[in-house]
Amino acid sequence: MKQHFIALCGGVGGSRLADGLARRLDPDELTLVVNTGDDFDHLGLRICPDLDTVLYMLAGLVSGERGWGREDESWNAHQTLQALGAPSWFQLGDRDIALHLYRNALLASGRNLSQAMARIAAGLGVRHAPAPVTDEATPTTIVTDDGDLSFQDYFVKHRADVHVRGVRYGGQAGTILSAGLEAALARPELAGIIIAPSNPFLSIGPMLATGRLRERIAARNVPVAVVSPYVNGAAVKGPVERLQRDLGLPPGDAGVLRHYGDLVDLFFTDSDRIAAPAGVRVVVGDTLMRDAADRANLASRILAALGAQA
Amino acid sequence: MKQHFIALCGGVGGSRLADGLARRLDPDELTLVVNTGDDFDHLGLRICPDLDTVLYMLAGLVSGERGWGREDESWNAHQTLQALGAPSWFQLGDRDIALHLYRNALLASGRNLSQAMARIAAGLGVRHAPAPVTDEATPTTIVTDDGDLSFQDYFVKHRADVHVRGVRYGGQAGTILSAGLEAALARPELAGIIIAPSNPFLSIGPMLATGRLRERIAARNVPVAVVSPYVNGAAVKGPVERLQRDLGLPPGDAGVLRHYGDLVDLFFTDSDRIAAPAGVRVVVGDTLMRDAADRANLASRILAALGAQA
Repeated sequence: MKQHFIALCGGVGGSRLADGLARRLDPDELTLVVNTGDDFDHLGLRICPDLDTVLYMLAGLVSGERGWGREDESWNAHQTLQALGAPSWFQLGDRDIALHLYRNALLASGRNLSQAMARIAAGLGVRHAPAPVTDEATPTTIVTDDGDLSFQDYFVKHRADVHVRGVRYGGQAGTILSAGLEAALARPELAGIIIAPSNPFLSIGPMLATGRLRERIAARNVPVAVVSPYVNGAAVKGPVERLQRDLGLPPGDAGVLRHYGDLVDLFFTDSDRIAAPAGVRVVVGDTLMRDAADRANLASRILAALGAQA
Repeated sequence: MKQHFIALCGGVGGSRLADGLARRLDPDELTLVVNTGDDFDHLGLRICPDLDTVLYMLAGLVSGERGWGREDESWNAHQTLQALGAPSWFQLGDRDIALHLYRNALLASGRNLSQAMARIAAGLGVRHAPAPVTDEATPTTIVTDDGDLSFQDYFVKHRADVHVRGVRYGGQAGTILSAGLEAALARPELAGIIIAPSNPFLSIGPMLATGRLRERIAARNVPVAVVSPYVNGAAVKGPVERLQRDLGLPPGDAGVLRHYGDLVDLFFTDSDRIAAPAGVRVVVGDTLMRDAADRANLASRILAALGAQA
């Protein structure tokens, strides 16, 4: 029997590990589960930043420079919106808009988000269709000294430069997990769960809070591997360090480990100065994913540590 | 007191005369009323073909070659929709999509179509904002031997190459006219109404059927000038001739005059072989609008005949 693995992914870091895993595993060996806590509506379009970043990465279309959106992109619609005086604080490329229009049409036809993304993935030739953690709208709210902010207000408008008191996840205990995630959790051959080096508070946290996923994972009793978002002592991307400070967690890997707690069995980091908590095996090595080879190598190391059969 | 004129406009021919009139009259002297019978939804976007053609023409952006859409346009979203396998039978350029996204957002915010178009016109620097005949959805239905067709099914998918039994207008007696049209009809200084050389059955007919506009125009008792859609005995654009044949009307100008009936006071045509019905003054001259000078000249001739004060 083939083994199966679940990977929980956010945006840029998640998309890179997702690509590495997809290079090592067949579609029926891997379920890529993606955060939807950042999703929102803009100009009537359903925006799914993390799903699309993973999708574009898997399709080989992602912009290497930006990390999101398509490398091959034009901005004529965006410039026209600016010229019209329309809301244009959120950048959408012309080709990216096409994906959004198609997703809207698929959703309007009655498909749920999982089904819409599967159809779009097929259209892009992507074999490992990413699954949203849930098809329900579960927006993340950032609680700050100045009041509650939506994720995009926090991340784009405020550039994450505010003191965060807490993060309120949209996913509830009763939120229904996506069919793809449920099916993966039910597989008898499930051999491990991988948490990508995405923001633990803004990308992974929302998923673990949804539909009791954290408890569901613990109950499956398969090894859980976490990849640290820190490289050379600094977060590769995004406001991880600031959030740990604001939320009263220790800096660096120690804060990440504290956040994930007893969920972690294996911890992948490039730091050899980590005091491993009881029950956690720390695996030291290069975790920076500069290119496709890095991504595939990290995936191989994680799968080997999880006991994957070659 | 300044005089005021109303012009009823469809797509390409309507946009050209609208531009000519806008070059001769100030915004407070002219109300451009545009057909909305072709409007429909595509990929969640509200498509208003005639309003947008008039708007792009007035903004100096219209494609000279196509007659619709923008001259300066790219098609990256359209090509991406095709690559994704999304519905792409209706062509939308990248910059045009921006206008549609903005209109959707304005409509979603609670503005009606008139208000949305006014905002967009301002964004494009257009002083003579076109007014939809109504803010209500009043889609035209083409009744054919093969059943009822929506306007776009008839026009784009079937390329107007079907036998038409009749045209059913969406506008009803009780349909509310747009505020701009109502205000223009109420102006004491209203000095004339101009019917552009648009398709009498598909562009002007839907407007006249809406909110008893035909009767409202007759009741105002101001001269009505019709510009023939025929040039050199052939319709400049679109299925006018085929429709007249299918609907049992005589060909050419005679069929147009029969269709408009006693609404017409002045009839502008390039044919000197017209038997003028009683009460109709036929004005013979060049009606083809090749360029801006042609458009302005035709507007001048119409306004002069309507007794406009220079």
